[in-house]
Parts: sequence; C-alpha cells; structure tokens
Amino acid sequence: MCRWLAYSGSPILLEELLYKPAHSLIDQSRHARMGAETTNGDGFGIGWYSTEPTPALFKGIGPAWSDRNLREISSHVRSQLFFAHIRASTGTAVQETNCHPFRFEQWLWMHNGMISDFHRVKRDLTYAVDPSLYSHIEGSTDSEVMFYLALTFGLQDDAPQAVERMVGLVEEVGRKAGIEHPIQMTVATSDGDRTWAFRYSSQHQSRSLFYTSTVQTLRETYPDNPVLELVSDETRIIVSEPLGDLPGVWNEVPESTYGVIQDGDDEMHPFVPLTD
Amino acid sequence: MCRWLAYSGSPILLEELLYKPAHSLIDQSRHARMGAETTNGDGFGIGWYSTEPTPALFKGIGPAWSDRNLREISSHVRSQLFFAHIRASTGTAVQETNCHPFRFEQWLWMHNGMISDFHRVKRDLTYAVDPSLYSHIEGSTDSEVMFYLALTFGLQDDAPQAVERMVGLVEEVGRKAGIEHPIQMTVATSDGDRTWAFRYSSQHQSRSLFYTSTVQTLRETYPDNPVLELVSDETRIIVSEPLGDLPGVWNEVPESTYGVIQDGDDEMHPFVPLTD
Amino acid sequence: MCRWLAYSGSPILLEELLYKPAHSLIDQSRHARMGAETTNGDGFGIGWYSTEPTPALFKGIGPAWSDRNLREISSHVRSQLFFAHIRASTGTAVQETNCHPFRFEQWLWMHNGMISDFHRVKRDLTYAVDPSLYSHIEGSTDSEVMFYLALTFGLQDDAPQAVERMVGLVEEVGRKAGIEHPIQMTVATSDGDRTWAFRYSSQHQSRSLFYTSTVQTLRETYPDNPVLELVSDETRIIVSEPLGDLPGVWNEVPESTYGVIQDGDDEMHPFVPLTD
Amino acid sequence: MCRWLAYSGSPILLEELLYKPAHSLIDQSRHARMGAETTNGDGFGIGWYSTEPTPALFKGIGPAWSDRNLREISSHVRSQLFFAHIRASTGTAVQETNCHPFRFEQWLWMHNGMISDFHRVKRDLTYAVDPSLYSHIEGSTDSEVMFYLALTFGLQDDAPQAVERMVGLVEEVGRKAGIEHPIQMTVATSDGDRTWAFRYSSQHQSRSLFYTSTVQTLRETYPDNPVLELVSDETRIIVSEPLGDLPGVWNEVPESTYGVIQDGDDEMHPFVPLTD
Repeated sequence: MCRWLAYSGSPILLEELLYKPAHSLIDQSRHARMGAETTNGDGFGIGWYSTEPTPALFKGIGPAWSDRNLREISSHVRSQLFFAHIRASTGTAVQETNCHPFRFEQWLWMHNGMISDFHRVKRDLTYAVDPSLYSHIEGSTDSEVMFYLALTFGLQDDAPQAVERMVGLVEEVGRKAGIEHPIQMTVATSDGDRTWAFRYSSQHQSRSLFYTSTVQTLRETYPDNPVLELVSDETRIIVSEPLGDLPGVWNEVPESTYGVIQDGDDEMHPFVPLTD
Repeated sequence: MCRWLAYSGSPILLEELLYKPAHSLIDQSRHARMGAETTNGDGFGIGWYSTEPTPALFKGIGPAWSDRNLREISSHVRSQLFFAHIRASTGTAVQETNCHPFRFEQWLWMHNGMISDFHRVKRDLTYAVDPSLYSHIEGSTDSEVMFYLALTFGLQDDAPQAVERMVGLVEEVGRKAGIEHPIQMTVATSDGDRTWAFRYSSQHQSRSLFYTSTVQTLRETYPDNPVLELVSDETRIIVSEPLGDLPGVWNEVPESTYGVIQDGDDEMHPFVPLTD
Repeated sequence: MCRWLAYSGSPILLEELLYKPAHSLIDQSRHARMGAETTNGDGFGIGWYSTEPTPALFKGIGPAWSDRNLREISSHVRSQLFFAHIRASTGTAVQETNCHPFRFEQWLWMHNGMISDFHRVKRDLTYAVDPSLYSHIEGSTDSEVMFYLALTFGLQDDAPQAVERMVGLVEEVGRKAGIEHPIQMTVATSDGDRTWAFRYSSQHQSRSLFYTSTVQTLRETYPDNPVLELVSDETRIIVSEPLGDLPGVWNEVPESTYGVIQDGDDEMHPFVPLTD
Repeated sequence: MCRWLAYSGSPILLEELLYKPAHSLIDQSRHARMGAETTNGDGFGIGWYSTEPTPALFKGIGPAWSDRNLREISSHVRSQLFFAHIRASTGTAVQETNCHPFRFEQWLWMHNGMISDFHRVKRDLTYAVDPSLYSHIEGSTDSEVMFYLALTFGLQDDAPQAVERMVGLVEEVGRKAGIEHPIQMTVATSDGDRTWAFRYSSQHQSRSLFYTSTVQTLRETYPDNPVLELVSDETRIIVSEPLGDLPGVWNEVPESTYGVIQDGDDEMHPFVPLTD
C-alpha cells in the first residue's frame, strides 16, 4: 500500500515533517512499520497550498528516499497546508499520472488502500464519472477514479456526503461483480481551507490512521517544548502511521470514521457509505 | 506529430536503420523534415520479434537521441521484424504507457497523427472498446484507444477491415460532436508474420508515408551495392519519411491506401472507412 | 550548446520569465535562434534564492518543455534572484549531476559553451582544483570543473579575478595540449546578493549574451506599460538570447566583457584572462 | 550495499535467474537477507555477452522490481555469460553512470562493498589511474575507480594480479589517510570468456559470496531434475546471496579468496593484496 501525511497549521518548511522526525515519511518509504509492505518506493508526490489560487504539485517516479529535488523543495518551501504521499503500487504503472495527490481546481486528494479486483470494476466505475469530468482522468489508478467519482457526487459542495456516495457506489458495483470486500481506504482531501480525512473499509479492518492531539493538550503534556509555543493552536497532522513515539501525541482515527480539520473546533463523525 | 519505422526481412541489428542511415530515425528525432514538428523528443519505443512467442518492447520517456540504453540494445539485438517510434506529444503525458508501439498478445501497433479534439470524444470511443479488452488500456493516448477499437473490431482476424471499422467509428463519433476532420493517421500493425501499413485522414491530406522498392528492383538499380546481395528478396521498410536521398529507393504510399508486407507478393489496396 | 537566464530584482513567479514571454526560455528549449543547436533538450535546472541561507535547486534530465514539475514550481515559487538553464549536451551524460546551475554553499554557477577537447585536458584541470574542494565535484562536465577552479582561485572573495584566473589556466593547459581555441563561454555566478555575468572565448567570437536596459530607461521608452511601475529600479535580466523583440529592451554584452548586477549602479568591465 | 549475480554456461533467457527463482535477484531488490540493507532500490544494471564483440549494457535509475524494460529484456534476450547488479547507494548520486556493471572494451566489472571514507582518498586514487584511461571515468563511485585502477594495473593481461595490486593501493592510500579498514568488496569481472570473482575486505569479514556446485555434482544430488540434463557441464552461477534454499547447490566462497570460471576446471585461490 502507501503512506501519507496531511499537515494544516502555521506555515512550516516541508522538511520539518518529511525528513526531520525520527520516523519521518521519508523514513517510512524504506521502513514502514504498519503498512502491507515495508517499502514504499513506487513514486511519491507532494501538494502544497501557498499564496496562489491553486495548490502546487511535485511528483516523482523514483523512490522518495533518494530524490534530490524532493529534498531541495522540502527545505525551501513553506506551506500552511500540504499533503505528502509515498506509493507502493498494487500493480498499476509507476508514472507521474499515478502519483498522489491528485488535483482538480483547488482540491487535492490522496489515498492509501485499494478497490479490490479493480480491473473487473474499472469500466463501470469510470463510466459513472460525470462526462464533463471524464477527460480530466490522466492515470490508471483506482485512487484517481475514486476522486473523480467523489467530484461527480458533489465533493466541492459536501465533501463527506460525496465520499460516502462514492464508497456506496464502489461497494454496490463490487458486490454485483461478486467481490466480497470491495474497498479498503484511508483518504485525505482538501480545498485549501479545510481538510477531511476518512478511514473505512468494507470489512471494517481499515488501514491505520492517526491524528495529533490539539496543540493545547500537547502544551500541557510537554510544557517545556519550545516548538509548541511557536505553532498556532489550530495546527494538526494526520498520518498513516506516527512520525515518532512520543506518548500523548498520536491518536488513532476510529474505524469507519471521518474527521474535519478546520478553523475553530475540529470534528469527528461516523462514516456510512450511501447508496441511492 | 511522430515519426515511425517498420522493418521486415533478413534479421539485422536494429542500429542498421535506427542510427546508421544519413537521415536515420534517431536523426529524425531532432531534425524531422516532413513532420508537423522538427523535434520528436517526447519519448520513444521499439518492439521487436525474435524467437519468443510475443514481441519484446523497450520504451523510454526521454528523447531517443540521448538514450544510452536504446543505443546499446540497437547495437546488440537482431530482429527479422521490428517497429520503432519517436513521439512528439500532442498534449497527453510523457510516460511509458503512452509510448508506441502498443502490444496485445503477439500484436504490435504504432501511430502517427491524431484523433482531433480527442478529449471531446474519448469517453464515447473508449466505451466502444470491448469490455474484456477495456482493462488492458494503460495509457491516455488516442493511439492506444484506436488499437483497442481495432482489436474490438477483429484486428486479429481481418486487420484491414478492423482498421476500416475503427476509422469509421472515429469519424462517426467525431462528426456527431461537430468535428470537421476527425482523424489523421499513418498506422502500422503486425502479428509477427505480416505487417499492415495504413495512410488515411478525414481531409485526405494525410501525413507522409514511404516504402522501399523491392530488393530485386534495388539490385537492378544499384548492381554494385554488396548489402543488397546479403538481404533476402522479401526485405522491406516502411517509414514516415525516407532515411536517405538515394534515388529509386523510396516510394510514397498513395493517399487513402493500405499495404501488406508478407511472404510472397506484397499488396496495396484503397482504404475506405466502414460504418455499420 | 545551452541557453540560460539570470534574474535579479523584485520577487516574481519564475513562470513570468520561463514560460510567459513570446520567446521564453522554455520556447528556446525547442526553438533557440542564436544557439549552435535549435534544440536544448538534454536536461535543465533552476536555482533560486528565497529566505533560506542557501539557494534551492531543481533539476531534470528530460526536456524542459514537457516537464510538469518545472511548470508547477515556476507557477508557485517567487524569487528575487534566480538562474535557469536548459542544456544541449556536447557529449557528457544526461544526468542531474551534469545539469546547471551548480551550487557550492550560497553560490550558484551556470555556463554556456565548452572547454575544447575537454577529455584531453580534464585530468590536468581537475587536479588543479583545491583538494578540499575536489570531492564536491559530482558530475562529469567541463562547466562544473570551471566552477571548482574558480572557487579554488577565490571566487568567494573576488569573483572577476577568480574567473579570469580560471580562464587563464584553461587557456594555458589547453595550449600546451595543442588546442587552438581552448575555451568558449558565457557564465553567470551569484552569491545571492550580486550576480556576475561573463562573455569570453579564446577566439573572441563568443556565444551571444544580452542584458536588459535599466528599468528607468524602459519606463521612459514604454511610459504606458504598467508592469514597469511594479518592478523595482534595480530589476535586471541577463540571457543567452532575448526573450522577445521589443525595441530598446535588450542590449548585447560586448565581446570579452563581464558585468556586475548589484545594489546601486551596475558595472561593466573588460574581461582579461590571468596567468600566474 | 548491493547484490549481484554472474552467470556463465549454456545460453539462457536472463529471466531464468533474474525473476524465476524463489529468491531471485529481483526479489533481493526488495527483500535481501544477507545485505547491509534489505532494500536495493537505487538503480540496477545488466551486462550480457552475445555474438557481438563487446557486451551490451542496460541500466536504470529506478528500482529493478518495477522496471518494465528490464522485465522485457530479461524475457527476450538469451546469453551465455551475463552480469546483473542491483544497487543500494552508499551516498553517491543515483544515475546511470553510477550503475554497475561498468564496461571497458570487452570487459565488464561489478562490485558490492565500498572504499571506506571514499571522499577522503578519491583524489589520490583517481590520480593513480593511467592518464590514457582517466577520461573514460564517467561516474562518481568508488567501484568505477577500482575498475580503472585494475585496468591500469593490467587487468586485461593478468586479472588476479591486477586486482591484488588495486586493492594493495587502496589499502596503502587508505591507511596513510588514517582509515582502519580501507576496503570491503566482492567483485566480478569478465572478458566474455572467463569470469573472475573476488571476496576480500581489509578486516577479513567480507560480504557474502556464493557459487553453485558443478553441474555433475548437482546431477548426482538431483538425478530427476530435467533442467540439469539441459545445461552444459560448464554452467556456473556466482551470487551475493543464494537464489533459493535447495541443499547442496550453494557453496560459500571462502574469505580472502578468488575464483575463476573458465573452460575446463574452474579454480579457487587465496587473494593477497599486493603493494609495490
């Protein structure tokens, strides 16, 4: 599978999370602990929001651990909201158009998991994408089709409902094709202001997903940590697996749940696939 | 657009045609004379038949002129039937899954030209591909969709008719979408025994296509050329543009025509798109 | 050869110069007018100064014209001083360590031209590099050796003199080896504050090099151009060939001359190789 | 470090050893058991002898496990003597010119291990390469410098002695620089007829190296195995780690030893570094 990270908060250099932590995302590209594979070397991607209207993307088809351009960008670009993803292909080609995050207008999307037996349901799912969106699909992954289905179902208006309808369709089409557990996913999506994170799988044994405690809680736990004085109260990280072992920092997103990172209080809700 | 070459005859090192001629295919990658663009630097591919049941492919996303692996393979691999293609993208991503030739079982396919306004007709055309073939499509080009449509229409049984039906469909769908000249193409396809080459465009001003005179004719014209004693009578080359300026060697394929290279006499026939 | 561009002035998006002008650097990658080759498709690189102590680098081994990451970075990164370079290899391998600009600490360096018969003088020149700098050489180009020789001769203390001593050595070693015209170059180097540009060749027929008129002059010539109101008085561009045809904008750097772009008045001086 | 494989014997498809065995070299690229790192994803290379005077090379900078061209070539090219190498960089750039095997005329060379603190001794070692060979060095690895030193010391005339002199020099230069254990290596080299394999390290705890039992012995151990009837008596494989767990097949090369695979009896001798 893959590993991913979503950051939202005070603007920081990307390297603060991609390279510096003990079990950083780059470390996870060679030594993932909780993934289906320890190696995530089939390409990578980052997407970051800055002052421009749409987020920037940088993608590569080699392993993240040896990519010098990723190292350079991470140590020179600051962002208040960014996604990072390292890929372990489940069979589709290693090419930039298959690297996450995917982008549509100001939206980003990334995924860890898979649509089971994707080759058997790909045609039906792809043709359920709105015809006006269809020609924007560039790659061959299940993850990108999931994104365009969510857009078809109104991601830009009501993100949680759109993702619930997308999953509802994937499960419906999959079960018609005789697939027992049609989907396995952790997904993050953002419009540059809010970030939504989803943890769900048909068999209710979803890939791991963690979020950081509130900065307020962390300040109480670690009163002497100067970094916590510098970052804003709103700062939050969501990751496939923790970036370190500090107690009290990382909390598991419960099974079949989604969360929203936003100005004001963040939220967490049950995730229930919707069918028409 | 692109440039391509198809060889059939006595087994030779690929470099004999890819590198050695004055205006070789590699030279054409930087200095094409008859193409829409002089530079064909958006990836390349070769496909060759040897003693294995299916042909081999080698593809790259950089320019052919600087690819060391292509140089190595061309100077060490011999083949009796091979395709070579250099790409100038008309917009779709530069990635291996978009490089020609495409392969299905023992068949190869390559194309120069385009389906006009492909993004407007892509969905309808892709939907017309047989569902059992659909999941074999890996890239995002018009050329690959053309191949899978031809396979849908029976390429493996009657190649000319299948290509005529494919073009018929492209023109029908294109015209319904208000596109004046839906297709522009020179195409080569082979099953390892026979090679078919097609020259056609909706406006009947098709990209250039040339074939070599018979070896017998060439021997009469150039009685002192020792190479012509070495190659078999059946040897034939088809190219987007001639590899040199020797008089009597290169003949233009007429507009709206296809040819067959095969054991025994080669053939040339009018090409007429078919609609159901 | 290659094409390059150096910008210094008000912070702008890189795309303003790399993509938007009529004859932008990206356009020059396929259609250079004044270079030895029209195609510069053997890799590229950009280096930019922002708020970090050392400049950032981004390099690629494919052609600049089709690189999506370059497009993304150029439309999201702003800089007050940046270098951009597109490469046409004169024989050495197409790899990131051969792409310009080269970096040492806060210094950038890029080059168009060549050391003649480099393979014959490479050993002597490389061993003239200070042993403490030697192991920083990563690639195989003449351009990088020129950079490390200039560093050896005190680039960081007196840039013009160091470059003059470097050229003096190249000419001395070259002539001993019986090479008539040992060097051909336009070079840019910067420490993040000042930028130096050099135009020189042993035969005094150097590659083209241009600089923009002062913003004050441009405002007088084009009083209605709103862009000129936005950029600072200090803004200046140096390029291998002009980015457009507007009269009064582009001035040729004279033969055997170097210039300094800096706070306050810029300067131009004769360039004279130095030997010990 | 790296993993490598050298084959000599009846012509076979490369995939027979690179992909098909349980613990094939491609499997070792993700799951090496005996290496310093489990992942060898920093590029790869193969070199094979066919009917041309010099061997062919194919190299890639991505991981071997996802490279489609390597898969294609391995399933279509047959060779009687080939090298394959998967790289785990110890710091130098991931680029084709740093991928093994290296080639000079008809010779191939590949290496697992390292020269300790290479950046401290690189200049002295490189300077000891014969000036006529110097400009053939294209990359930045210790392994390539070792090859050119061995060529300098007469690899083409007396391979074992040349390697012993190379190692002698590396140890001498290293110890002068205060390096306790200057070299760690398993090396294979071939001229297309004979293959030499070396296992040595300054601290006499060298990386693992194995060779297959003679085909005669294997036939006696596995009288019912039909493959053993097909391959010639001379067939032999040398590998960093065994391709499978079959008892009686894999024998460890002793510490500080080299072997020769050749027509007639193979040989094994002690390896003793030579100094002038």
